[in-house]
Order: sequence, then C-alpha cells, then structure tokens
Amino acid sequence: MALNPAYEAIGKGFVHQYYAIFDDPVQRPNLINMYNTETSFMTFEGQQIQGAVKIMEKITSLSFQKINRIITAVDSQPMFDGGVLINVLGRLQVRLLLCLTDEDPPHAYIQTFVLKPIGTSFYVQHDLFRLALHDSI
Amino acid sequence: MALNPAYEAIGKGFVHQYYAIFDDPVQRPNLINMYNTETSFMTFEGQQIQGAVKIMEKITSLSFQKINRIITAVDSQPMFDGGVLINVLGRLQVRLLLCLTDEDPPHAYIQTFVLKPIGTSFYVQHDLFRLALHDSI
Repeated sequence: MALNPAYEAIGKGFVHQYYAIFDDPVQRPNLINMYNTETSFMTFEGQQIQGAVKIMEKITSLSFQKINRIITAVDSQPMFDGGVLINVLGRLQVRLLLCLTDEDPPHAYIQTFVLKPIGTSFYVQHDLFRLALHDSI
Repeated sequence: MALNPAYEAIGKGFVHQYYAIFDDPVQRPNLINMYNTETSFMTFEGQQIQGAVKIMEKITSLSFQKINRIITAVDSQPMFDGGVLINVLGRLQVRLLLCLTDEDPPHAYIQTFVLKPIGTSFYVQHDLFRLALHDSI
C-alpha cells in the first residue's frame, strides 16, 4: 500500500474527533470502536495494555468528568502500510486524575497514535500517553 | 513478521545509542547511518523532511556544541512488521539552538521514533521532534 497523501488532514481530523469523544463522559464509551479487540496497544504512563476491552477499562478507570484540553501541536507522518503516525503535544487540566485539584495548573502531555488502515477507515493500533509533570520536566 | 518480544530493551538501547552519537559533535555525522536514503521521515518542529541527506542537513544546521540532556521516560511498543515504536520525554539545555543562553532553564522535549527492521538490525523510518517551550505548555 502506498503512502497516504492526506496524512496531515487525517491526523488533525482524527485528533479532533478522538478528543471530542474522549472529553465527553456520555460519548466516551464509544472510544472502544477506535481500537481493535486484539491488535491495539496502549502505553499509559508506562503501563502496557493490549486489546480494546482492557484499553477501555483503563480509560474508564480514570473516572474524571471535566477536562480542559488545549492542543499545542499535532505532527503527522505517512506510513508505508497506508497508516498515519500522529504526535500530539498538549495541555490538560482535569478533576480526579492523579488527585489534581481545581487549583492545579495545566500539565503538558504527549500522546502518540499509529492509525492502521482498515478498508476506507482506520483504527488505533498504537497509543502512548505521558503526562509531563512539572517536577519531571 | 512477528512482534519482537525484546521491544523494550531495543527501545531503551536505541535511545541510549542515538543520543550518545547525537550529543557528541565528533560522532554526530555518523547519524546518517541510522536513516534510509529514501524512506526515512523527520518532522522537526513541524518541518517535514525526507531522506537521510536532508535529515542530516537539518541536524547539522542546528550547529550547537554542548548539550545537557536528561531522559525522563522512554516508552516502547512492538509493531506488527517487527519494528519498534519509541516515545521519549526529556529535558534539553543547549547552546546556540533557538538562541537559548546559558542561563536558560532546560526545556522539555518529545521525540518519537519508529524503528524499521532491516536484516538483524533497524533503521529510523520515522522521527518526530518537538520542544515543549514554556510559553507553549
């Protein structure tokens, strides 16, 4: 399969769509449709997780309701299987995640996605997330 | 090709080796051997670059001599072509890059690599770099 020339629009469109669903507690369970039952990997703060069900267990275990998110940069590259590699740098302020209070400043975070083509669409084959806490940067 | 079970050691070993060469002005030109002439992509602060020669032009154009680097986290995942996806979160303090002076504090940065298997070794197929400047996080 060839490189997808629309990789930049695909990357930005995916990031917009993913976070719109992630940041809405009502829609959040629908994220399961973005991952494959077997072949999706997540690394969340260093913890390795495989498969859509376990990934969703992790996401729902975060149990926050309110998220203030600012996207600083989205960088994408085309991959040789027709997929797209996406790097996101952003800021995140949440309640009930890592015991942050409302007074805490936003924390930088990084998230990397690899979108794998499936028919005319994509699923998330790789997902890595790290908070860049102030005392660690 | 199957998932490489040694992905974590490969990721950490690569990051150690890559930065040892990158951070030494004498060895830095040898980085060209880590990239493919045609099929390596770099995104440096949003700028898209393809191929080992142009990637090396970018790296050498940075023209700093002294780098203080601290690696905060290295997260790796195995890929289905036998490759390894690596996310690095670190801190960087340099001279002559983006007009930083010696008094500037270290800046957080993120770098993502995709290692593509070639025989018993790997090359860097994808490389994305972003400084997380204080005013942007």
